Amino acid sequence: MSHAFPFSAIVGQDEMKLAILIAAVEPAIGGVLVFGDRGTGKSTAVRSLAALLPTMSAVADCQYGCDPRDDNGCDACRGRKTAGRARSKRVPVPVVDLPLGATEDRVLGALDLERALTQGVRAFEPGLLARAHRGFLYIDEVNLLEDHLVDLLIDVAASGENVVEREGLSVRHPARFVLVGSGNPEEGELRPQLLDRFGLSVDVKTPGEIAARVQVVKRRDAFERDPEGFSATWREEDAKVRRRVVAAKSRLAKTRVPDASLERAAQLCMNLGTDGLRGELTLMRAARAVAALDGDPEVGDAHLRRVAPAALRHRLRRDPLDDTGSAERVERAMADLFDA
Amino acid sequence: MSHAFPFSAIVGQDEMKLAILIAAVEPAIGGVLVFGDRGTGKSTAVRSLAALLPTMSAVADCQYGCDPRDDNGCDACRGRKTAGRARSKRVPVPVVDLPLGATEDRVLGALDLERALTQGVRAFEPGLLARAHRGFLYIDEVNLLEDHLVDLLIDVAASGENVVEREGLSVRHPARFVLVGSGNPEEGELRPQLLDRFGLSVDVKTPGEIAARVQVVKRRDAFERDPEGFSATWREEDAKVRRRVVAAKSRLAKTRVPDASLERAAQLCMNLGTDGLRGELTLMRAARAVAALDGDPEVGDAHLRRVAPAALRHRLRRDPLDDTGSAERVERAMADLFDA
Amino acid sequence: MSHAFPFSAIVGQDEMKLAILIAAVEPAIGGVLVFGDRGTGKSTAVRSLAALLPTMSAVADCQYGCDPRDDNGCDACRGRKTAGRARSKRVPVPVVDLPLGATEDRVLGALDLERALTQGVRAFEPGLLARAHRGFLYIDEVNLLEDHLVDLLIDVAASGENVVEREGLSVRHPARFVLVGSGNPEEGELRPQLLDRFGLSVDVKTPGEIAARVQVVKRRDAFERDPEGFSATWREEDAKVRRRVVAAKSRLAKTRVPDASLERAAQLCMNLGTDGLRGELTLMRAARAVAALDGDPEVGDAHLRRVAPAALRHRLRRDPLDDTGSAERVERAMADLFDA
Amino acid sequence: MSHAFPFSAIVGQDEMKLAILIAAVEPAIGGVLVFGDRGTGKSTAVRSLAALLPTMSAVADCQYGCDPRDDNGCDACRGRKTAGRARSKRVPVPVVDLPLGATEDRVLGALDLERALTQGVRAFEPGLLARAHRGFLYIDEVNLLEDHLVDLLIDVAASGENVVEREGLSVRHPARFVLVGSGNPEEGELRPQLLDRFGLSVDVKTPGEIAARVQVVKRRDAFERDPEGFSATWREEDAKVRRRVVAAKSRLAKTRVPDASLERAAQLCMNLGTDGLRGELTLMRAARAVAALDGDPEVGDAHLRRVAPAALRHRLRRDPLDDTGSAERVERAMADLFDA
Amino acid sequence: MSHAFPFSAIVGQDEMKLAILIAAVEPAIGGVLVFGDRGTGKSTAVRSLAALLPTMSAVADCQYGCDPRDDNGCDACRGRKTAGRARSKRVPVPVVDLPLGATEDRVLGALDLERALTQGVRAFEPGLLARAHRGFLYIDEVNLLEDHLVDLLIDVAASGENVVEREGLSVRHPARFVLVGSGNPEEGELRPQLLDRFGLSVDVKTPGEIAARVQVVKRRDAFERDPEGFSATWREEDAKVRRRVVAAKSRLAKTRVPDASLERAAQLCMNLGTDGLRGELTLMRAARAVAALDGDPEVGDAHLRRVAPAALRHRLRRDPLDDTGSAERVERAMADLFDA
Amino acid sequence: MSHAFPFSAIVGQDEMKLAILIAAVEPAIGGVLVFGDRGTGKSTAVRSLAALLPTMSAVADCQYGCDPRDDNGCDACRGRKTAGRARSKRVPVPVVDLPLGATEDRVLGALDLERALTQGVRAFEPGLLARAHRGFLYIDEVNLLEDHLVDLLIDVAASGENVVEREGLSVRHPARFVLVGSGNPEEGELRPQLLDRFGLSVDVKTPGEIAARVQVVKRRDAFERDPEGFSATWREEDAKVRRRVVAAKSRLAKTRVPDASLERAAQLCMNLGTDGLRGELTLMRAARAVAALDGDPEVGDAHLRRVAPAALRHRLRRDPLDDTGSAERVERAMADLFDA
Repeated sequence: MSHAFPFSAIVGQDEMKLAILIAAVEPAIGGVLVFGDRGTGKSTAVRSLAALLPTMSAVADCQYGCDPRDDNGCDACRGRKTAGRARSKRVPVPVVDLPLGATEDRVLGALDLERALTQGVRAFEPGLLARAHRGFLYIDEVNLLEDHLVDLLIDVAASGENVVEREGLSVRHPARFVLVGSGNPEEGELRPQLLDRFGLSVDVKTPGEIAARVQVVKRRDAFERDPEGFSATWREEDAKVRRRVVAAKSRLAKTRVPDASLERAAQLCMNLGTDGLRGELTLMRAARAVAALDGDPEVGDAHLRRVAPAALRHRLRRDPLDDTGSAERVERAMADLFDA
Repeated sequence: MSHAFPFSAIVGQDEMKLAILIAAVEPAIGGVLVFGDRGTGKSTAVRSLAALLPTMSAVADCQYGCDPRDDNGCDACRGRKTAGRARSKRVPVPVVDLPLGATEDRVLGALDLERALTQGVRAFEPGLLARAHRGFLYIDEVNLLEDHLVDLLIDVAASGENVVEREGLSVRHPARFVLVGSGNPEEGELRPQLLDRFGLSVDVKTPGEIAARVQVVKRRDAFERDPEGFSATWREEDAKVRRRVVAAKSRLAKTRVPDASLERAAQLCMNLGTDGLRGELTLMRAARAVAALDGDPEVGDAHLRRVAPAALRHRLRRDPLDDTGSAERVERAMADLFDA
Repeated sequence: MSHAFPFSAIVGQDEMKLAILIAAVEPAIGGVLVFGDRGTGKSTAVRSLAALLPTMSAVADCQYGCDPRDDNGCDACRGRKTAGRARSKRVPVPVVDLPLGATEDRVLGALDLERALTQGVRAFEPGLLARAHRGFLYIDEVNLLEDHLVDLLIDVAASGENVVEREGLSVRHPARFVLVGSGNPEEGELRPQLLDRFGLSVDVKTPGEIAARVQVVKRRDAFERDPEGFSATWREEDAKVRRRVVAAKSRLAKTRVPDASLERAAQLCMNLGTDGLRGELTLMRAARAVAALDGDPEVGDAHLRRVAPAALRHRLRRDPLDDTGSAERVERAMADLFDA
Repeated sequence: MSHAFPFSAIVGQDEMKLAILIAAVEPAIGGVLVFGDRGTGKSTAVRSLAALLPTMSAVADCQYGCDPRDDNGCDACRGRKTAGRARSKRVPVPVVDLPLGATEDRVLGALDLERALTQGVRAFEPGLLARAHRGFLYIDEVNLLEDHLVDLLIDVAASGENVVEREGLSVRHPARFVLVGSGNPEEGELRPQLLDRFGLSVDVKTPGEIAARVQVVKRRDAFERDPEGFSATWREEDAKVRRRVVAAKSRLAKTRVPDASLERAAQLCMNLGTDGLRGELTLMRAARAVAALDGDPEVGDAHLRRVAPAALRHRLRRDPLDDTGSAERVERAMADLFDA
Repeated sequence: MSHAFPFSAIVGQDEMKLAILIAAVEPAIGGVLVFGDRGTGKSTAVRSLAALLPTMSAVADCQYGCDPRDDNGCDACRGRKTAGRARSKRVPVPVVDLPLGATEDRVLGALDLERALTQGVRAFEPGLLARAHRGFLYIDEVNLLEDHLVDLLIDVAASGENVVEREGLSVRHPARFVLVGSGNPEEGELRPQLLDRFGLSVDVKTPGEIAARVQVVKRRDAFERDPEGFSATWREEDAKVRRRVVAAKSRLAKTRVPDASLERAAQLCMNLGTDGLRGELTLMRAARAVAALDGDPEVGDAHLRRVAPAALRHRLRRDPLDDTGSAERVERAMADLFDA
Repeated sequence: MSHAFPFSAIVGQDEMKLAILIAAVEPAIGGVLVFGDRGTGKSTAVRSLAALLPTMSAVADCQYGCDPRDDNGCDACRGRKTAGRARSKRVPVPVVDLPLGATEDRVLGALDLERALTQGVRAFEPGLLARAHRGFLYIDEVNLLEDHLVDLLIDVAASGENVVEREGLSVRHPARFVLVGSGNPEEGELRPQLLDRFGLSVDVKTPGEIAARVQVVKRRDAFERDPEGFSATWREEDAKVRRRVVAAKSRLAKTRVPDASLERAAQLCMNLGTDGLRGELTLMRAARAVAALDGDPEVGDAHLRRVAPAALRHRLRRDPLDDTGSAERVERAMADLFDA
């Protein structure tokens, strides 16, 4: 609600912050997964993302916030276009929470039975998936999500639309969003089909220096005692980050990925033995987004190296002969390849 | 939705592409199963199938798209025939997705309770099975499908009609479709009754050469950034494939299967010890479709060899004394038989 | 639907065909169980049974097809008799499929809620059990049937009537049918209570000669390409079999079972250690039906020997000291007894 | 339905027949349990019981068949008594089947929702428990009964009334019946709470002589081919048994149990180590009923010995040092006590 | 129903009878648990309790039987008090059976949907908990009670009120009762939270002398043959017991517990290592009730010793080094303490 | 209901009492968990908390008791503010019990279907979460709470609002409360996500001295025999405690936490290896609340030491090389740090 903790006031946690910026610049990256201990500020960081996002243009009367330029909008919007009635307005990019215990009705939306019975109208009450359209859907403890919700999410995330069919009612609306999940891997594994939906994954850790810890506690306490005042202090810092995101978004289409970089990416993935080609695709896109954030005209080794752990870490097979962690295996493969 | 990735732009994966062409030419082949790693383009290939299929003739007002020449159409169509009112139109062959989490109502269709209560009419809202009639039903992650949906599918696939009986309502409509499934065998086995419904099965693998991988990533990125432009580039290639499918369909009835080929097929299956005779039946039909695609007047050893792995691989019993894979066992049996 | 594969065109499988003929002649035999590999034509054979059965006489307006001579017909028929209004007509003997995933409503029948609410009438929509009355109920994959359906079936098969009581509605109608089941024993055992309902059980195997296999494949392909033409070719052969069944039915009541044969049957069952006396009862009836099919005036050793494996095979206890199969144990016991 | 197999035509099985006669004479014995192999005629024997029972007097308009002399009848009957309107009629003693798959509504009775909605009356449709009031409730495969039905039965059998409370409706009616169960102990154990409800338990076995087996098969075949004619043949034998039951019922109240017999019974139970005193109570009552059947004025050792196995067999604890069967342990304890 | 077996006619079982008398005198003792073999008369003893209880005063029109002097009565009673309309009448103390298979509606009470729909009134149909208010709630086989009923009971027993909230209806009424449970510990353990609700627990055993056993059987048979006559014989004995209970109740408030006795109780509990202080509290109250029953002015060692096993037996932790039973451990600790 | 046991009359249990006082002063501490044996007065202590809390100001007509100064109140309150109609009144701080078996409707609130149907209004019946807003929610046996309720609680506790979406109805109201839980850790572990919601955790034990035990029993018996009189005796003592809480609340904002104390806290947590930084945050806040209770102007080592065990005990990882209890590990780490 109300005030989110300012993104710029987060102490450390650079890899997580970079992943969030990439997702803000290039939503096609395919979701961000944040894994780590309790109490390290995972949720705080995700919720602070909303403040970094520029507003977007939406059809004024659309209950799904369709893009006025999109030909794949909801049924009503397609009708409006034909009728030439699609006025637009600026709206914030949605960042929506999906709580663990949410009912299917709340997630998918539901038929308003009362209005159907009393007024004879087919009223659909949109759910969380509708609210997240064109924005971000955040699931804390994503590894504890119930199986039937995971099935629903995978289906909608893959098809980009939500279909609700119940007792003869049939509603279909676009639902394209970036999935952001956080969780503690010690409490349950993620199903591979869901894991695969995430483009980037980052690990966060409790800071190891007294000074950083004291700073976190002081900022957190200050924020909770006076959210408004604290946010005001960091407003200009956050505005700088937002301008950087806006600039990167506009530069992205023109940022080039030379064949040499694609070959580097492919070689790295082959050396690591990742399944399929989604690793390379993500690596290429994430590197392009970083180049755009940095204002570089094309992707080079440095960009690849900064994002490879986040893009590949969760795509490795367990190797029974090599029990080092995923992050280290990616680092070692990069050293072998790039430093050779 | 909208644009599917062009069939001709798929890099490599020749066995999968041949299986899809066979199913397009001879739907009686009985379904295609695609097994392999995540991210190898299984779903992409299946969805590109729609563009290869010529349109078909359907009764104009029929909600199931019945064939005007079919005496086993839906109840309404049989009524129309008697009344001499069955006008026809050209429609695309349907390629329908069945998502994992789909409810029974969505798959089978449902009674529109509201219309029943307010207007007093028995309104049946057709489901995915109705939409797939005379076309293809695609199930991604088919090995994760819930048991009760598997039961429903097996029943409908076997009987060719969908019967919905609920609260005294009874609807029955034809539902004849080719089942196409894809999945990752590491995440769950297919129930033998469902496995048995698939005529052909193919394995796909992540490509092992840098050049191929870079090409896949570049084409995929190009398609996602500009689906329309990319599809335009490949339109003529896809049209060539479609013309080949159309020609094969018209040639199929005249393509002969000599007794020598049938004996070869029977001997191969006996040597491999496949249960029952469905292996031989499928092998014969697939070889005939390949001959038709190639424009050959009759089936010979070369046609049998090209399709035997796909037709037999999933019909072998596990042999405790021989732990080589199914594909290798088929290859070795073919070498023993044909090269002797 | 439409055309079933002709009974006479089935290649080999003599024991299965004899069991089906016995059930057609003497429905009191108590059901036929066909166990064997997938793809050996089990379902095909059962479905071809319908064409062998002579029509029967039924009360013209009865929704259950009651026998005009039966004093235990449905409530309406008893009313008709009292009122002297029971006209009759000739109808085919029903052969009804019970699919695995069938709902309880579909099997038992259901109250038509809509008519009850809108027209105020207690309308019962009969289910599959009603449709099977006086005929055959076929369950493919019978060993995979859900437990609650098995319970229902056992109850109805034992009592000969179907009682539906729900929300205060109570409907009761006769449901006397021959249960025919097929399945693959490797995929699940049959519950002993259900197994016990089957009078005869036969095993079918994939044919072991090339010529037979080629013939099966050719006939199957010919049938599927032109069902009507293929059926026409075999019509006269099927008619011969039907005339044999009709003759045997009329001879059955007069075919004698001498005490010596009953003692032989009892001795064979005692030697085999079958539980209870249902083995002897079935053996006696099956032998009598075979004698009637052959036109013999009384049952002798030859008749007993032909049906003993099918009548007793599924009634043996597992003998820990003798691990030969059931069929062999019956054969050996017969040799000891009859050849001594 | 219609004709039951005549009690007198049952070959052998003397202990089971005696137990059934005892229950007919003294319903307070508390139920009879028949355990044994399939196909030994357990159900046949129980169903033949109905023909042995004399009619009873019931309130003419009562839907539960209340006893006109009973002060604990249903609510309506108590009202009738007060109003002096309770006319009586003769009715057969009910013998009701409870099938395994029966729904709770069918067993307990249900509210007739339709009449409630359309006519505004609280119509209760009595269930199987109501139909069994003052008679016998037979459960075949009693050891396979679902737990929730077992709970219901135990409650009703213990309290002698059935209480249905659902959605604010509350119906309460007397339901006092003798429980008769049969089953195959190899397929599942009986819950101890239910086992304890049975006064007598008997084991039945497949007969071991050829002559008896042939006789069973001949009688069974004769009965099924011509139920009416067969029953006529045995009518006078059954009438003799019924007269014996009627005489025993009238003698029962005057048949004495001397203290010496009670002490014998107590000593036998102590020697066998049965829990509680229900064993002695049942033994005393069963011996009294046998004395009444035989026309003896008081109970002696001979009567106790004839019923002790049936009364005590199912009340023994398993003795880890003595693995002989329950029946043998009772026999040995009797020999030790009576023959000493 | 009707006649309960007279309390005074119970043979032996002194500890159980004392526990029941204590609960009758001091309901705050917190429930009585009776554990032991089947057929030892546990239920009989509990049901005979009703006859020992003096009537109580209740508000005349209250459906919960509220106490006219109670300020925590139901909503209606508080309204009546304010309006000065609370007339009172004498009613028996309720002793209510909670059967194992009871539905939640029957236990908690339910909304009368029909009256709500047809008459538009919020009619609450009170359940068993309401009927047990101010009396006793008896659960036979308490250790087999379903978990969700145990949860409900624990909540109501702890809070003293029953809250039913369903579909927006909210009813709340007082439900303060003494829980009495019986069961066979061999068939299932009691959940510790429920065990903890019982103040006293007693074990009952099958009597070990012939004379006692014969007497039990004779009295039981006499009662069942002529309940009225048998009860008349014991009426005066039961009246004596009731007068003793009434006298003890009036003396209870004045019966003193000297500090020395409290210290004895605390020391005994410490020596036994019981958790928490509920053991001491119960021991003190039970001893006070015994003193009141005996007419003694204050509690002494003799009273403590008589009730300590029943008050403490179920509160001991299992001691891995001491495998003697709970009862013996209490006895030994008493000997150590009191006889030292 | 009615009278709670006076807080001041609790014998011993100082750590538990301090934790309750801290929660009363600083609700942001995040919940209190009380773990220990049955019968040690855990529930008694929590329920006595209500009497210590000063009244608070609430919007007069608000069904959630919103704070008149709060901009995040319920929808109605925001409407009232805009309309300038928000009158206020003084109300007690709620202390609400959540019983284990509570239905979801009771916890979350429910739609009043009857009013919706008869009056056509969307009436929401608030649940326990609404009643606990701005106060305390107490769960006894919190470790036995069902998983779906735990999910709901975690979601609401994290977001501070309760969202009910069902059948098209959508209600959202603030629900900010302090969670207080008690339980016996031997009967089930707390899920880590829920454990993490508790700021402080304390262990309680059965007192080990005779005198204390006797005192507890005497006070408890005195309270139950005369709640009103007993409470009167302790009224002034309780009032003193309440004045101390009120004073501490007003001092809290001005109580300083010097950096040295924050560093001490951080060092202690690092030495103990607690996950994340929630330990430090809680430790700082609890120490500040203790300083405020004591009237000290700033936090020092003494305050940290008094609360560290309660703030950190439940945040330690199990250390396989050190099997001492959590409390001892905290004590030892404090000794190492503060006494060095």
